[in-house]
Amino acid sequence: MSKFWSKAAKNLVPYVPGEQPKDKKYIKLNTNESPYPPSPRVIKAIKNATNSDLRLYPDPEFHELRETVAKYYGLTKEEVYAGNGSDELLAFAFQAFFDPGKKILFPDITYSFYPVYCRLYNLDYETVPLDDEFNVPVNEFLRENGGIIISNPKAPTAKYMGIDEIKTIIQYNKDNVVIIDEAYIDFGGESVVKLIKEYKNLLVIQTMSKSRCLAGLRLGLVMGSSELIDGIIRIKNSFNSYPVDRLALAGAVEAIRDEEYFKETVAKIINTREWVALRLKEMGFEVLDSRANFLFISHSKMNAEVIFNHLRENGILVRFFKKPRIDNYLRVSIGTDSDMEEFIKVLEMLIL
Amino acid sequence: MSKFWSKAAKNLVPYVPGEQPKDKKYIKLNTNESPYPPSPRVIKAIKNATNSDLRLYPDPEFHELRETVAKYYGLTKEEVYAGNGSDELLAFAFQAFFDPGKKILFPDITYSFYPVYCRLYNLDYETVPLDDEFNVPVNEFLRENGGIIISNPKAPTAKYMGIDEIKTIIQYNKDNVVIIDEAYIDFGGESVVKLIKEYKNLLVIQTMSKSRCLAGLRLGLVMGSSELIDGIIRIKNSFNSYPVDRLALAGAVEAIRDEEYFKETVAKIINTREWVALRLKEMGFEVLDSRANFLFISHSKMNAEVIFNHLRENGILVRFFKKPRIDNYLRVSIGTDSDMEEFIKVLEMLIL
Repeated sequence: MSKFWSKAAKNLVPYVPGEQPKDKKYIKLNTNESPYPPSPRVIKAIKNATNSDLRLYPDPEFHELRETVAKYYGLTKEEVYAGNGSDELLAFAFQAFFDPGKKILFPDITYSFYPVYCRLYNLDYETVPLDDEFNVPVNEFLRENGGIIISNPKAPTAKYMGIDEIKTIIQYNKDNVVIIDEAYIDFGGESVVKLIKEYKNLLVIQTMSKSRCLAGLRLGLVMGSSELIDGIIRIKNSFNSYPVDRLALAGAVEAIRDEEYFKETVAKIINTREWVALRLKEMGFEVLDSRANFLFISHSKMNAEVIFNHLRENGILVRFFKKPRIDNYLRVSIGTDSDMEEFIKVLEMLIL
Repeated sequence: MSKFWSKAAKNLVPYVPGEQPKDKKYIKLNTNESPYPPSPRVIKAIKNATNSDLRLYPDPEFHELRETVAKYYGLTKEEVYAGNGSDELLAFAFQAFFDPGKKILFPDITYSFYPVYCRLYNLDYETVPLDDEFNVPVNEFLRENGGIIISNPKAPTAKYMGIDEIKTIIQYNKDNVVIIDEAYIDFGGESVVKLIKEYKNLLVIQTMSKSRCLAGLRLGLVMGSSELIDGIIRIKNSFNSYPVDRLALAGAVEAIRDEEYFKETVAKIINTREWVALRLKEMGFEVLDSRANFLFISHSKMNAEVIFNHLRENGILVRFFKKPRIDNYLRVSIGTDSDMEEFIKVLEMLIL
């Protein structure tokens, strides 16, 4: 602690991202990146935008990208906004819609950045325990609160919640904002974007880091009623006029337009996920039903941390959360078929 | 106002960036961008980085960029950090080092984002009036305060403050953080980065948007004692793990390394600035001494808003601030020689 830090800075408990060791080459199954490169059209669009116009500020309102996303989802431009990764948009949303004093609700097992944002903006929260099978107890969200955030499919369990259950929560909480974090929605889930016209209190946040293979470009999307989007814009324009650079804008537009590549890579990842899940079950793993680009797994006879270390020693990184209820689970991102064959092979060394 | 907005969001007065009209092609002298493209080496580095690795998150700690900047300035890597434009770093710094209740001091005429950050983080501030020639009254900063921020050269006047004057302020305020915003330092000023080893309370913020010709890439730098940089890192890691994308990192490293191109473009801009200043004076303008890539000008016989509109109608955008004390001034970015010849020609239509 430094005497120069503000009380707010002293009070923080910063988020810790998945490790990115540089000591050797790993098969990286620890940060839910896509194993596939971005679309060739995206690469081309970025290279074309890498020109003398980089001397000029980007469009602070992201008009072209917003129009492209709006068209894709059947929304208006006023119902769409973008940010420097979905993390930035989550932070903006916490600040724009949640007030200190009233408790924000989210599941006890969730994306670990949510409590970090609460500390950052001095917000109160209460975690709602998932049931023993990690399902969201919908009724627990039908009560007085200061706002709700739920990821769907859920981080880090990969489990998916049906649109009707979410609708029940949105419907009950008409005076509060309900944020649905759909970082992983494209891997088999149904987006609640279609409910935006009906519910002014619904905010949907997505990312291009997973299904669009662009984690390195930093591009998040937020969708909701125009009054919610205006709230996001107020924060953004009080923070950074130009949070998304020219190259990210150019790449993101093309990523949305190249639907064929998007569908193809997502289908490959789902296909890989399914055979890996089967093999893991044959090896005695519990494998939670996944609609994401990762699996959440646990072995009845082998401690998760032991498996984690064994994998790491053999050049494979997965994510292990030393936290209550999930400290015997591993989160394993879906790689290419050959990545996953190696993963299974290394596991077999330990388990068979 | 929406019922869904937080009290914080309702209370904001967002910053308004310079206009970016699309109705026709303008000579853009309104947002202090460089008239020159980025270095060819930067373009090449970005294109090289536009590859399949974009599927992977960028380095969250910016190691290579920090090492490159540290070497350039004779600092350690622990004394350097980066952000998504200097605006993001300014926001982080306000949150990291300033507390509500104690008044932050900055000049009355300054970068208009500073009071916006105060609203965003619920901070109190007091503006210190510049003297009649827009000089900073150093003695007014030698008193109880909650922190200080001064841009040097100053936005929007372009005036420069000597390093000894700044040293007096830093020296007196040893228990508070003094932020020097050096967005325009490369156009003839001397950076206070050299004081960092001596003063643990000094934070210096710079940008690649001006002298490095990369406004479209979004890259800011912050330098200070490692305990101040650690404060910035705490905020960053509670907000967004990866605020700077892979392409910005690649381009920024090369921009620092290509010192020849940097010196050449900066010299051209200074040269243009000097002849334009002379011509404007001949036309009866007051032209404040500039060490920036813009001029702050006023005409005794012609209203600034009239000149602004005349320029705009003739395809030239400059910046006009309708604010007390400066509402008869225009801020004019330095373009290429040919941009500025056109600017002078259009002015002559009105004034001669």
